[in-house]
Amino acid sequence: MPNTLIRNCHALVPDARGVPTLARNQDILIRGNRIEAVRPTGQPPEPDLEVIEARERLAMPGLINTHSHVPMVLFRGLAEDVPIERWFNEFIWPLESNLTEEAVYWGMQLGLIEMIEGGVTTVADHYFFMDQAARAVEAAGTRAHLGWAVFGSRGLGALEETAAFAQRWKNGADGRITTWMAPHAPYTCDDGFLRASVEHAKKLGVGIHIHASEEMNQTRASLEKREMTPIQVLDDTGVLSVPTIIAHGCGLLPEDTQRLSRYKDHVGIAHAPKTYLKLAMGLTPIPALRRAGIPVGLATDGAVSNNTLDIFESLRLMAMMQKHDASDPEVLPIPEALDIATRGSAAVLGMRDRLGQLAPGFLADLILVDTSGAHWQPPHNLAAGLVYSARASDVQTVMVDGRVIMRDRQLLTIDKARVLTEVASHMERLARRVPGARIQTYKP
Amino acid sequence: MPNTLIRNCHALVPDARGVPTLARNQDILIRGNRIEAVRPTGQPPEPDLEVIEARERLAMPGLINTHSHVPMVLFRGLAEDVPIERWFNEFIWPLESNLTEEAVYWGMQLGLIEMIEGGVTTVADHYFFMDQAARAVEAAGTRAHLGWAVFGSRGLGALEETAAFAQRWKNGADGRITTWMAPHAPYTCDDGFLRASVEHAKKLGVGIHIHASEEMNQTRASLEKREMTPIQVLDDTGVLSVPTIIAHGCGLLPEDTQRLSRYKDHVGIAHAPKTYLKLAMGLTPIPALRRAGIPVGLATDGAVSNNTLDIFESLRLMAMMQKHDASDPEVLPIPEALDIATRGSAAVLGMRDRLGQLAPGFLADLILVDTSGAHWQPPHNLAAGLVYSARASDVQTVMVDGRVIMRDRQLLTIDKARVLTEVASHMERLARRVPGARIQTYKP
Repeated sequence: MPNTLIRNCHALVPDARGVPTLARNQDILIRGNRIEAVRPTGQPPEPDLEVIEARERLAMPGLINTHSHVPMVLFRGLAEDVPIERWFNEFIWPLESNLTEEAVYWGMQLGLIEMIEGGVTTVADHYFFMDQAARAVEAAGTRAHLGWAVFGSRGLGALEETAAFAQRWKNGADGRITTWMAPHAPYTCDDGFLRASVEHAKKLGVGIHIHASEEMNQTRASLEKREMTPIQVLDDTGVLSVPTIIAHGCGLLPEDTQRLSRYKDHVGIAHAPKTYLKLAMGLTPIPALRRAGIPVGLATDGAVSNNTLDIFESLRLMAMMQKHDASDPEVLPIPEALDIATRGSAAVLGMRDRLGQLAPGFLADLILVDTSGAHWQPPHNLAAGLVYSARASDVQTVMVDGRVIMRDRQLLTIDKARVLTEVASHMERLARRVPGARIQTYKP
Repeated sequence: MPNTLIRNCHALVPDARGVPTLARNQDILIRGNRIEAVRPTGQPPEPDLEVIEARERLAMPGLINTHSHVPMVLFRGLAEDVPIERWFNEFIWPLESNLTEEAVYWGMQLGLIEMIEGGVTTVADHYFFMDQAARAVEAAGTRAHLGWAVFGSRGLGALEETAAFAQRWKNGADGRITTWMAPHAPYTCDDGFLRASVEHAKKLGVGIHIHASEEMNQTRASLEKREMTPIQVLDDTGVLSVPTIIAHGCGLLPEDTQRLSRYKDHVGIAHAPKTYLKLAMGLTPIPALRRAGIPVGLATDGAVSNNTLDIFESLRLMAMMQKHDASDPEVLPIPEALDIATRGSAAVLGMRDRLGQLAPGFLADLILVDTSGAHWQPPHNLAAGLVYSARASDVQTVMVDGRVIMRDRQLLTIDKARVLTEVASHMERLARRVPGARIQTYKP
């Protein structure tokens, strides 16, 4: 793998407090899979470097998607304009009974194409047949945090199998794959199942990626059934004692935030605003979480609720929605939005010291964004451009672990035409909903 | 101008009730500036037609932006994360003291480039130095509804000049330009000024494009000052007796909606959700307006609040925000969202019988959207794709008045490189804020 100099870009770099800020006309020096230096342009490049000219390009840390079900792209557009109960019971869980190992393999690749083309270099994925997802990530050259999703109804034997996956792929793909236990949610896994998940996580030295407090109705149902919020359940069963990614937290109560703050060094919240709007789930209380020091990161959830796997879209919606709901346009200003999108998301994945900053010693996961489009002009304010103008289609070049995997919008690791053909061949079968055939029932 | 056959596209066509619906594998026949037929593909093309092959393209009516201040793209990114009072008084109105005729000319072209590239074929623009805007529209080949904005403080002489513009360019650019009177708002124009605007409008046979009830604070201030809502003021001064475009209506009370319903045949509301979120202005009450039969259309407002001139983004935000605010994911389903984006917007501009439908006799303003991108795959649901996946960058080909003005993303009427260079040359001067130099004060 060559060492690389990205020459004369604008770079989103940490300021003295670590908050991302725009520095114009920078060179970025990459050796191996790490960033060695970010410095003002002008110095002649060292002779052993491959130079990427980056004029009018903006370099920023590769985007991180902290919670998705990537292969659900296979069902994109099949469950629109319905409430969450019908979304699960009449659409998602019947549709998912159509899944096969092969479909997941191609669906994962389709989702990775969409994410790479949109500048997403790392995804925390929570789905089924995860060996196939891992194979796809290995070939695509991206970074991924993978957990094999499991419902309590499947029993402890099934949980064991998901732990075996976590063991099999731990530090896989030259260290680009991190594995997690992935019990589905407190409302689909009983306490014994959650405790067993924690046991596995501890034995394997991995974390737990789980849905909890997705919306306020779940919190209310949990309080009614057992006088505990879902977050209390996670605490009580030991989940919060290991690294935890919690999706989505739109049903968090103030006491939940207080409780989570005790675990802020290893517990974070994945925020997927487009899904919340479409399903009218409310919003994650981001300002309260941030005040309590709890990491918040950006996510897309699956494409059946979110329709796209576009983190630029999540970033924009997050910033705008917090202003709207607070009736205050000064909430979540641009530097904080960019901070959540970079350092925040890295912290949610437990990688705050390695990912999410263009700084010496950090992993060389970065993207070059074209700022020459009409929608960026004139470039008075590039940081505002990133939050409020950037489109996924502006991403030109993507590097993960020091390796370029998309150059000038050409994918270098995935055969896109093949993937689209394979996905199309599964399309009709996957769209069938067989009455009664569903993998789970939603009844929080 | 050649007659055209668009061959084998998917087409968004009116169903029996006129609501847009997807028909796969259609041909669209265009003669002169009108659509002659939309029919299933397969028939050999008539010999005099230029054929545009459109496989995997989705044809839909050209998008309509019902309220903007296009040349404000010149100030993009200069007023972020501030409340509306500071936005006007410390940023916009001081910045606008830097405007010149020449800057408006280049700014208008920059905005037209962004809109054409994003599939917007018609814009209702409300700004200054509008002869320059008209010149730019004439050359670009788009359709536009132009009004020269004026504050009451400028006096009746200035109003007269804006009426002279409306006279000068009425039915200009081969009928592609429609002119409007454009008094700024009831909070910046006194009743006499509004009545004089109505006089001019009636004499010229044009409508009035105006801001009113932009947010609830304006409504409250108006009630306190004079015991009338801004909509009552419009009624009382005769504004609602002529065709009227009202931006933005986030401060409408139920009695305002009732009042507007009396004028629903010629009065409509322009909805620009991204601006409302960024400035925390609340939302236009779309379901109530629709129930009352009042046209609602999509808009972007200016790029200093909205950052982009992207109607696909407005469409998506509109649908999602109404669900969120109503806590009901069944509100504003996909067909209704598409109806607002097409027929609704056309009705707001008083063109419901000529614009906004792919149907025989309608003006040939249409766009071809590429649905082959990963974010559209697999194509289970193209209508959902238009609302929730489409990006401005998916627009491939744009036709206005029967003439192709962008083909395969190549602009055919505007010299983009020249425009970007000219805008860049004005950039630094335009960004200066001279203390005390502002064109108006915000104090509703």
